[in-house]
Amino acid sequence: MLDLVALGEPLVQFNAVTEGPLRYVTYFEKHSAGSEANVCVAVSKLGLRSGLITRLGNDEFGFFIYEWLRGQGVDVSRIRFDPERPTGIYFVQRSYPVPGVSTVLYYRKGSAASALSPSDLDEGYIADSRVFHTTSITMAISDSAREAVVKGIEIAHRRNVMVSFDVNIRRLLWPSIEDAVKAVEGVLRNVNVLFLDENEAELLLGTKDPQVVFREVEARFGISRVILKMGIKGSVARWDGETVNSKAFQVPVKDPIGAGDAYAGVFLASVLKGLPPSRAIVRASAAAAMVVMVRGDEENLPREQDLEVFLRNYGLSDVELR
Amino acid sequence: MLDLVALGEPLVQFNAVTEGPLRYVTYFEKHSAGSEANVCVAVSKLGLRSGLITRLGNDEFGFFIYEWLRGQGVDVSRIRFDPERPTGIYFVQRSYPVPGVSTVLYYRKGSAASALSPSDLDEGYIADSRVFHTTSITMAISDSAREAVVKGIEIAHRRNVMVSFDVNIRRLLWPSIEDAVKAVEGVLRNVNVLFLDENEAELLLGTKDPQVVFREVEARFGISRVILKMGIKGSVARWDGETVNSKAFQVPVKDPIGAGDAYAGVFLASVLKGLPPSRAIVRASAAAAMVVMVRGDEENLPREQDLEVFLRNYGLSDVELR
Amino acid sequence: MLDLVALGEPLVQFNAVTEGPLRYVTYFEKHSAGSEANVCVAVSKLGLRSGLITRLGNDEFGFFIYEWLRGQGVDVSRIRFDPERPTGIYFVQRSYPVPGVSTVLYYRKGSAASALSPSDLDEGYIADSRVFHTTSITMAISDSAREAVVKGIEIAHRRNVMVSFDVNIRRLLWPSIEDAVKAVEGVLRNVNVLFLDENEAELLLGTKDPQVVFREVEARFGISRVILKMGIKGSVARWDGETVNSKAFQVPVKDPIGAGDAYAGVFLASVLKGLPPSRAIVRASAAAAMVVMVRGDEENLPREQDLEVFLRNYGLSDVELR
Amino acid sequence: MLDLVALGEPLVQFNAVTEGPLRYVTYFEKHSAGSEANVCVAVSKLGLRSGLITRLGNDEFGFFIYEWLRGQGVDVSRIRFDPERPTGIYFVQRSYPVPGVSTVLYYRKGSAASALSPSDLDEGYIADSRVFHTTSITMAISDSAREAVVKGIEIAHRRNVMVSFDVNIRRLLWPSIEDAVKAVEGVLRNVNVLFLDENEAELLLGTKDPQVVFREVEARFGISRVILKMGIKGSVARWDGETVNSKAFQVPVKDPIGAGDAYAGVFLASVLKGLPPSRAIVRASAAAAMVVMVRGDEENLPREQDLEVFLRNYGLSDVELR
Amino acid sequence: MLDLVALGEPLVQFNAVTEGPLRYVTYFEKHSAGSEANVCVAVSKLGLRSGLITRLGNDEFGFFIYEWLRGQGVDVSRIRFDPERPTGIYFVQRSYPVPGVSTVLYYRKGSAASALSPSDLDEGYIADSRVFHTTSITMAISDSAREAVVKGIEIAHRRNVMVSFDVNIRRLLWPSIEDAVKAVEGVLRNVNVLFLDENEAELLLGTKDPQVVFREVEARFGISRVILKMGIKGSVARWDGETVNSKAFQVPVKDPIGAGDAYAGVFLASVLKGLPPSRAIVRASAAAAMVVMVRGDEENLPREQDLEVFLRNYGLSDVELR
Amino acid sequence: MLDLVALGEPLVQFNAVTEGPLRYVTYFEKHSAGSEANVCVAVSKLGLRSGLITRLGNDEFGFFIYEWLRGQGVDVSRIRFDPERPTGIYFVQRSYPVPGVSTVLYYRKGSAASALSPSDLDEGYIADSRVFHTTSITMAISDSAREAVVKGIEIAHRRNVMVSFDVNIRRLLWPSIEDAVKAVEGVLRNVNVLFLDENEAELLLGTKDPQVVFREVEARFGISRVILKMGIKGSVARWDGETVNSKAFQVPVKDPIGAGDAYAGVFLASVLKGLPPSRAIVRASAAAAMVVMVRGDEENLPREQDLEVFLRNYGLSDVELR
Repeated sequence: MLDLVALGEPLVQFNAVTEGPLRYVTYFEKHSAGSEANVCVAVSKLGLRSGLITRLGNDEFGFFIYEWLRGQGVDVSRIRFDPERPTGIYFVQRSYPVPGVSTVLYYRKGSAASALSPSDLDEGYIADSRVFHTTSITMAISDSAREAVVKGIEIAHRRNVMVSFDVNIRRLLWPSIEDAVKAVEGVLRNVNVLFLDENEAELLLGTKDPQVVFREVEARFGISRVILKMGIKGSVARWDGETVNSKAFQVPVKDPIGAGDAYAGVFLASVLKGLPPSRAIVRASAAAAMVVMVRGDEENLPREQDLEVFLRNYGLSDVELR
Repeated sequence: MLDLVALGEPLVQFNAVTEGPLRYVTYFEKHSAGSEANVCVAVSKLGLRSGLITRLGNDEFGFFIYEWLRGQGVDVSRIRFDPERPTGIYFVQRSYPVPGVSTVLYYRKGSAASALSPSDLDEGYIADSRVFHTTSITMAISDSAREAVVKGIEIAHRRNVMVSFDVNIRRLLWPSIEDAVKAVEGVLRNVNVLFLDENEAELLLGTKDPQVVFREVEARFGISRVILKMGIKGSVARWDGETVNSKAFQVPVKDPIGAGDAYAGVFLASVLKGLPPSRAIVRASAAAAMVVMVRGDEENLPREQDLEVFLRNYGLSDVELR
Repeated sequence: MLDLVALGEPLVQFNAVTEGPLRYVTYFEKHSAGSEANVCVAVSKLGLRSGLITRLGNDEFGFFIYEWLRGQGVDVSRIRFDPERPTGIYFVQRSYPVPGVSTVLYYRKGSAASALSPSDLDEGYIADSRVFHTTSITMAISDSAREAVVKGIEIAHRRNVMVSFDVNIRRLLWPSIEDAVKAVEGVLRNVNVLFLDENEAELLLGTKDPQVVFREVEARFGISRVILKMGIKGSVARWDGETVNSKAFQVPVKDPIGAGDAYAGVFLASVLKGLPPSRAIVRASAAAAMVVMVRGDEENLPREQDLEVFLRNYGLSDVELR
Repeated sequence: MLDLVALGEPLVQFNAVTEGPLRYVTYFEKHSAGSEANVCVAVSKLGLRSGLITRLGNDEFGFFIYEWLRGQGVDVSRIRFDPERPTGIYFVQRSYPVPGVSTVLYYRKGSAASALSPSDLDEGYIADSRVFHTTSITMAISDSAREAVVKGIEIAHRRNVMVSFDVNIRRLLWPSIEDAVKAVEGVLRNVNVLFLDENEAELLLGTKDPQVVFREVEARFGISRVILKMGIKGSVARWDGETVNSKAFQVPVKDPIGAGDAYAGVFLASVLKGLPPSRAIVRASAAAAMVVMVRGDEENLPREQDLEVFLRNYGLSDVELR
Repeated sequence: MLDLVALGEPLVQFNAVTEGPLRYVTYFEKHSAGSEANVCVAVSKLGLRSGLITRLGNDEFGFFIYEWLRGQGVDVSRIRFDPERPTGIYFVQRSYPVPGVSTVLYYRKGSAASALSPSDLDEGYIADSRVFHTTSITMAISDSAREAVVKGIEIAHRRNVMVSFDVNIRRLLWPSIEDAVKAVEGVLRNVNVLFLDENEAELLLGTKDPQVVFREVEARFGISRVILKMGIKGSVARWDGETVNSKAFQVPVKDPIGAGDAYAGVFLASVLKGLPPSRAIVRASAAAAMVVMVRGDEENLPREQDLEVFLRNYGLSDVELR
Repeated sequence: MLDLVALGEPLVQFNAVTEGPLRYVTYFEKHSAGSEANVCVAVSKLGLRSGLITRLGNDEFGFFIYEWLRGQGVDVSRIRFDPERPTGIYFVQRSYPVPGVSTVLYYRKGSAASALSPSDLDEGYIADSRVFHTTSITMAISDSAREAVVKGIEIAHRRNVMVSFDVNIRRLLWPSIEDAVKAVEGVLRNVNVLFLDENEAELLLGTKDPQVVFREVEARFGISRVILKMGIKGSVARWDGETVNSKAFQVPVKDPIGAGDAYAGVFLASVLKGLPPSRAIVRASAAAAMVVMVRGDEENLPREQDLEVFLRNYGLSDVELR
């Protein structure tokens, strides 16, 4: 039995060793990444069991991700290797033109994971977990992958597994923003936990006012657990009637990519471990800060003790009180 | 007026900094590559004028190649930027499993250059050159690119421009080896200079015996200028009735990719400069050896003086005799 | 016809990979640099045509700069190779002893460019351009180079080409500060656009009060277009009677060298493109900030769209308004 | 059920990035290593199941090895973390003073694995496997570890698990060579498969003549499966009455450390897969050559297909015959 | 005659090239370090003569430290090489989990320096110096080393050499914090200059109030020269009745380790050069800031002129007044 | 009293990290080099005392060399810092165009050492040594340096110090080859030990036949100790009537620069240690091979024990016989 099962595409990330436009970058550093894979590693790092449903290319990059995830303790028993399609990859340009902001260049069209389909879903595997997590990224990469997401959410919902959904709209991957919105709206009815940022709130709900967001999401989709991320202003969550929030921790930024996944993964793991949402949101915010300090999305995902040391440094640990 | 116009896809090459399986390689080094682009740079390095007809992605990798080729003196006036498709790329695994042999992993399906079509050909540009060069790689990347090759060769032939063709069959890029053979055979009638290796001779002609190869190529396709590359055994050429040959120079190998392009480019540039085929073949062999000593296909392409210094070291320079 | 022609010495920059005293630095990173060359690249990056008049050593470093500038789109037709003298180079020590401040170690005495002389000037080449740009650095490297500057400014003035001059006093290159001041004063009568910083204003005019600077420069030299750079306080310009200013953008600094050249190049390109000085000064300030975020002076010089993305991030873009 | 269970100390290897005396080496590259761990990875890479019995420090280096082995598919369920003792490490000096030869500097005294003792042995875990493998290195690191080796061999012998022993005498780890010899002799009675090199044969048996070695080992210890490694002369094995041999493959050497482990692991995996000893010895020799081409002991351990590609290159593959 | 003689263990520091948990760090950078060695280099860099009493392993890492210290001008005539024990080393993890904070992993148990004993002390060498400096780190590494510290302090005290002691409690090296406190208290009676931070003041004196600290230290141990370091709040010193202080300079932090040693070394060198304590404390604070900007403890230790340039940048130089 | 005093220019060497034309090399690695300095380090590494008479720039590169030489045990008491002139530097291009051969690019004109003059010579310092060593390189860098060489040789000769001279003609540094020959001939009368290669023998004596070389050198200049280096054919020496020789050891070459200095330094140190010339020549040849295996001239200069391990590997050690 796993604590969290995720569905989505892991990618090999080639992160620019030096900052500035990629045309002038000579060296690239390889990392394992991908939104849902990041969440799995975040959950595993905190001592819970996670598993990823996906497809990888039957190539060295696919083997790299497979061995990396297995090394990190993620269950890889539901990863299939596609004999024809390559593993998806992308490149990261850092701090150009805007300091602290990264830009990506994808090579994931026609990737192994884009062939994900409902046939990749093992109902028992999902049903036997406590949370099923995915994002709209996986809905964007192909029609069959979108169907897999819809089906996965449907299975989880039917089998009483908590459904977590991180909106994560990537404009580069959708024909139009309307397509993205429509696809997301199509699954929200079966979602239990929703992560979104202010831009996504604006797109989906026409507002970024937290209280309005919470009210609308509950009213329109029946979701009572909503986490709204507001950049440097921090984040706020509505969780079964309770509102909690956290500041955003200010740290030196090497590459902000992966912050949202660290946030979602640590938030979910924290509530799965029985922590109150007020604590989960602070821990999630800390983890998001930790991962942006390095290249790579998964290397700085914290273990329990490191998370608490980080928070203690900001006067926010309650570990020694217990 | 250019000395050589080539048609084909430039690619960004990400070469493994350390040897062994790519899954364990952490750093990758960026280079500009691609068979026909390599030939253009080889020609330019020797002081002649070359130009490349191609398409690049409107992205940082496309700009990298564009600026690199322009810097190397290649005419880039016929390079178009595709607003939708990305620049093709590939990764190089070195010395695994076999020492001195490289393996490639392509991400070029749906690349900007795969949209090359006859519409990219400016008849005047080709007609105004002395040699038109291309390879079967470009025929493999898409139907429209294959049509462009056929059309380009046809134009050059019609306008009395010498047509050079490097067979260069890449099995990874063709549905079947028969498709490759058929495509190549389809254009040979209009070819004047043919580069091929022993495997390709075997495929196309059922033999790797040089004299049979020369006889058959002339008999079947009317080509009287044929260069047969035989790996460590060296190479032999038939040029308007004269047979010349060269040994292969033994050097420490970092990455053998690009050797054939160096060979073709330097052979062609040498004859364009009025050197006899007996000299062209030795220079081509030297250039092939020079480029395999480093990562990257184009950085070690020699200038005149460096080529002669290399040959002098092997007692094969005739420069000081003149 | 070029938009801007510059006269000056390009140099190979060897930038310390790690910070601290150079004696302990093991690795150095090669870049193309030099004040006027930087300006040419800045102008070219924004889509205009620039050309550089200079001399380079007939050596690998000279070829590096030549190919780099050609790759960046700078016209290199007036670059001569000196068969005897080497290409000038320098080393950059970063953040020691003062964080964010760099120190240089020159090896440019007797360089190829120090042999620049009036004979390098092609009157038609200058006359056919819209701006002629140079700095006092070029006046410092040798007597003949100083004569070339004087002559170049004289030609441009006579042929009604706008003369831009960046004071750029480098104390290491002059016998005494008085020599520098005297040399600069000697050419200002023919200058139309003057860039200077507070220290230089103090030296030349005995004041750093912007209004006094503007008044004095106009009174003494007849220059009505003056840009005064004031470090972290920003910059202010007087342009044909109008006074405009910009803040300095605060970014993480890797190496501040090249900021002034980015500023001058982008200011000039902006006015050449018809933008008002109020916009040119903001764009110039943005570009200066962008280049200090990386090692190397030219890699982060912005394209139009990147410049606007940077400014939009600070709420200072007006692109979407048009 | 595992195919092979090994007992021994994994170590973090810090391999010199540049060759020469370590005092002048600035950068070191981290790898997972250790003789028995290498064997486990070799077996896992060929598609069989292996597991390692050991102790690691409860520190970042211990976690590194644990995650690496898990990623490589090695069963880590019997690895314990020692709360007090650190993970053992060592440094590798390459090609100094002798080209192609490495020297090691250990920091393993008092390591977590030196606390290995019979209590770490789970009889069922060993009994449930097909081969139990260890080396004299583990006997040298501490008294309790030596007892664990003796006990492990005894268990395996008693439970009819094939016992494989690689002599692997490391003079730096023993008080005297006599101690080493005595310890090794003490366990050979229960050993079924013995790997040794010429120096070790000389030490244990007073001869390096293969036939004498085979006869003596059988006579004195009752071992009928003996593999004698003879450096560049190749290797020869006696296996249940049959004598087979292989040449040593000549490849460019980066770091020879780990060759013997690759040899043993691939030999064992090959016979476990049902290949005849004549094939196992060629494959083992190939694997030994493959791993010395890179820094690190485990990265170049071959998969089935890579092993066969390597051998095919030397005309020694029989894969396509089947 | 030396200005300062120190007693303690130099270590080779392997500093993580990239930030984050060490398990994911691939490259490590070698530096010479160790608290008392750092102080020696600090003193030497400012033009005074220092010497270190210690033991090193007779290995490449010992030779590295020996040559480095000799190169930096430190007298190495009292360094002995231990034929059996290795040179102590440690690894540095940077900015994880807390940004700007480093964590160390020691491999120094049983090191050569742990065999330091009173027999290593040459009374004349100590007596002939102006300051004898050591720390509690050396007291923690072994019983014999602690005896050497006690004896060294006793000799210096008896021969009227100023005794400087930096408390420097490293919890990882002591069985319990009480042991550390007791050991430190045991030597303070013979100490003349005491460096400590707020945590150490709390441990030793039960307070971190500067005035109470100064009063208590004088009352209990008779020390009239005490320097209290208070992190980002700066530092304050009581020196023969005079109280002086300095702010902490805010700089970008790569690795804070070594800041305290830079502080102590520069403070001592400054007073040895006859500067007043009010100047020594500002210079010490500046040096502490300078060294944290890079990896490595000793590379950024300032020369006189660099120290003054740093201070001038903060408006705190008085050099030009003289 | 020193064993060897040398006179010459140390240089900072910037060695290309990657092979091929320097224009494409991005990273350069800093080393301390210079022919006579290399000899000093070679002598010091073998346990003898050497000292260098030279001038360095008063800059970070001068400090680097000074600290490096001091660290290596070379006496630096006669090194002066020139307040005006920079430290000489050069760049190394490796394996292009010829594999295993390096090309240099000097920036040493007007360097601090070029101001060396007879005034730098302390007669007592030279008289108090056993060997005075220099080369024609120092004679080429300036008139005053040439005078210093002449004067130094004259002092040594007069004070009965053995004079060693390595011809070392660098064509790049002389106006004409005739100038070089004439200068060398001018000092040979006072030389006792002469190192030269076949090209230099041809230039000076019109022959490269060893016996003729030895006869002529003795006849024309009265030198009875001559060492002739013949590249891959090895070397041969005539030493007080005895003829000895050595093969050249074949090793993988990274950068051949410095081989001759290693050879001279180890030859001289060996005879100074009382070894017979037959042993000195083998050891010198070994050392020459050792240094070409790495970038940098001095890092691989062997200690006694490493030299013997190297030779033992080739069956050429006689150490264990004693």
